[in-house]
Amino acid sequence: MISDDDRRERPHVVILGAGFAGLAAMKVLGGKAVDVTVIDRTNHHLFQPLLYQVATAALNPADIAMPIRRIVRRSKNIRVLMGEVQAIDPSRRVVTLDQGEIPYDFLIVATGAGHSYFGHDEWERDAPGLKSVEDALEIRRRVLSAFEVAERESDAGRRRAALTFAIIGAGPTGVELAGTLSEVARKTLARDFRRIDPTQARILLLEGGPRVLAAYPEDLSESALKQLERLGVEVRLNSRVTHIDAEGLNIGDERIDARTMIWAAGVAASPLARCLGGPLDRAGRVKVEPDLTLPGHSEVFVVGDLMAAFQDGEMIPGVAPAATQAGRYAARTILEQRSGKPRKPFHYVDKGLLATIGRASAVANLRGLKFSGLPAWLLWLFVHIFFLVGFRNRVLVMIQWAYSYLTYDRGARLITTTWHGLGREQDEVDRSGKDLRVGQP
Amino acid sequence: MISDDDRRERPHVVILGAGFAGLAAMKVLGGKAVDVTVIDRTNHHLFQPLLYQVATAALNPADIAMPIRRIVRRSKNIRVLMGEVQAIDPSRRVVTLDQGEIPYDFLIVATGAGHSYFGHDEWERDAPGLKSVEDALEIRRRVLSAFEVAERESDAGRRRAALTFAIIGAGPTGVELAGTLSEVARKTLARDFRRIDPTQARILLLEGGPRVLAAYPEDLSESALKQLERLGVEVRLNSRVTHIDAEGLNIGDERIDARTMIWAAGVAASPLARCLGGPLDRAGRVKVEPDLTLPGHSEVFVVGDLMAAFQDGEMIPGVAPAATQAGRYAARTILEQRSGKPRKPFHYVDKGLLATIGRASAVANLRGLKFSGLPAWLLWLFVHIFFLVGFRNRVLVMIQWAYSYLTYDRGARLITTTWHGLGREQDEVDRSGKDLRVGQP
Repeated sequence: MISDDDRRERPHVVILGAGFAGLAAMKVLGGKAVDVTVIDRTNHHLFQPLLYQVATAALNPADIAMPIRRIVRRSKNIRVLMGEVQAIDPSRRVVTLDQGEIPYDFLIVATGAGHSYFGHDEWERDAPGLKSVEDALEIRRRVLSAFEVAERESDAGRRRAALTFAIIGAGPTGVELAGTLSEVARKTLARDFRRIDPTQARILLLEGGPRVLAAYPEDLSESALKQLERLGVEVRLNSRVTHIDAEGLNIGDERIDARTMIWAAGVAASPLARCLGGPLDRAGRVKVEPDLTLPGHSEVFVVGDLMAAFQDGEMIPGVAPAATQAGRYAARTILEQRSGKPRKPFHYVDKGLLATIGRASAVANLRGLKFSGLPAWLLWLFVHIFFLVGFRNRVLVMIQWAYSYLTYDRGARLITTTWHGLGREQDEVDRSGKDLRVGQP
Repeated sequence: MISDDDRRERPHVVILGAGFAGLAAMKVLGGKAVDVTVIDRTNHHLFQPLLYQVATAALNPADIAMPIRRIVRRSKNIRVLMGEVQAIDPSRRVVTLDQGEIPYDFLIVATGAGHSYFGHDEWERDAPGLKSVEDALEIRRRVLSAFEVAERESDAGRRRAALTFAIIGAGPTGVELAGTLSEVARKTLARDFRRIDPTQARILLLEGGPRVLAAYPEDLSESALKQLERLGVEVRLNSRVTHIDAEGLNIGDERIDARTMIWAAGVAASPLARCLGGPLDRAGRVKVEPDLTLPGHSEVFVVGDLMAAFQDGEMIPGVAPAATQAGRYAARTILEQRSGKPRKPFHYVDKGLLATIGRASAVANLRGLKFSGLPAWLLWLFVHIFFLVGFRNRVLVMIQWAYSYLTYDRGARLITTTWHGLGREQDEVDRSGKDLRVGQP
């Protein structure tokens, strides 16, 4: 237990979550006159903007993830605990983990967001989303297995369903996934099968709204749509999914048989937001004060995707730069408070938006400076390499991108569950044995 | 179904397993006047000699695995099926998969070997072995989690058990694992924790026989033992494990509390050997004819770790070069038979033995030319890079090795199951909460 004296000397800052916001806070607090405890469910910081590349077999998980301990190794005032937060009690200033309680003087809640299935959580099993390394490996397994199943399938209808990939939601993640999957089918796998033609795979991008990348200016949405279609993606706008099961999905009365579906539509704040007892918005985010604190608790900061903060009447977007700025602000505010400075409100500096679509395809909007295609793509490459954590990762990712660009090959095409463990496939394939004989089409 | 005419024109060769033996056979048969079907449970060929580096977080799975389809992409006469072989019927010349039957004219059985727990299969749960990518990721998870648990543990005895790693069996895999784990604890993780000192971790290498690397000349075993001890490994010879449970193991009356145990002791041939109906040796391997065929079935070749073949009175060892030579021999024999040549018996060319122990530590025995330490290690590096499949993998592995060598860091330190899913740990950690407070030792 910390004595009162100790506490006055070195306040204890607890950071929940080591995403972009938590990481930025750690970096500010490292080596300062505070004791810091970082708690995360995983042992690594994940560079989420490149997670879709793990899901599409271009990169390894370790290329975009860095052990949290490794990042803060030199900051002796920071300790890291791998654990699951179960509750937060702002009145007692205590966080409850699965293995005990941790008191804090300042709390930075940066646990981010997960998927929202808009009340249809049962869809998750058949249309998983993409937030963690495990999600990415599961999607990679499903995508690669779909081609394996199609190669073994003798029924034409089921073969078509196995080669149909539906991505639900045309935000940045959905657009990246659709563009990349199309490249995987049309280029990477093109010559690897004997019975099926992977270039015939159907990549559907389903969007409930009237345009892709709704956060972007309309002309960039238009450009992104054209680039997607050039890559072979079938984009369906104003198409709201009404039902999902293991065999496919419905858009109103229309049925689409698809073996692989990926959810990239809704975002729901981490359920921890509810523990805090503050006001929440519709997506479950905490409506914070101008200094990003929980109303009534100036010692509790809520940052990153978990915060609902407004600036000039607009909500600050849930993007990595905003999370980084907010985490850094919270940490600095804690340090400045100790030197008696009055708090200034958080000010978000919009650096612009940048989304990739596929090989040499991207859109960028940098404070009104809009461009698309190759220049936007090169900028995207540069920014993502630059912000990746760790020199080693930067080198490895650059080499793998260069290799993929030149050869269309993707190095991480591993299905890391044995066939025996796939379960679902075994029920689907033809058991007659006919289709396995040599010489059949 | 293949007509008789077709069969005479293009025989159908089925290869079971895409390890070293199966891969070598594929390479010989690619582009030749035969139809080939390759069946494997996974979608990749695995470079097993480097699997321990995945288990110890130095390499990514994708660095040492290559999709089988990718390898044979240009050989249009080879098709690949991902599937589980359930039975082989040599009398009907048919292989049964989970999804049907496949007839063959020639069969190459190369399904390798798994672990033998000498009648104690219940030990596998607590002391897994290292054969597949999944095994390696599970061991990596356990090793990294052990340090996380130790960091959170307040009971000294349990903290010591969490930092005790027991490797059972001092063959090449056991020696590599022990040497590398010691390096991980003493160098890689040394500064990453606050409460525990990873350099105090105890790495035990338990061997039932009187020396390590029993297949090597005695002086090299002696040298390997010294190198292991220099790396901080506690080697226990003549120590047969008599019991294993979740908390540790017994050597006769002696109890050793250990949280992480890895099995590297016994090898058992794939259970498919039994389907063949031929004579088996004690480890379940098929006693083959001098041309590596099943007795009474000159069209069924059994190669790699599954074969029990003798040369000059000695058994051909279960190493990668022997598997490669045997697979190549089987494929060539099939091709030569069609040109009417009489069969020559298989002749194994012993290229020597090579085992690494840790950084700059190894032993080599090349046809009587024995050396150890740095020269043997450099040879090991060269050989393993050279035989790795794929240019991309060679480059990436070299870079990661160079980086690890210079920094002692290991890039793939990922625990890819969330804390919530670890299960066992949650029961072990202190629930009082006391140990989580700042300022405690």
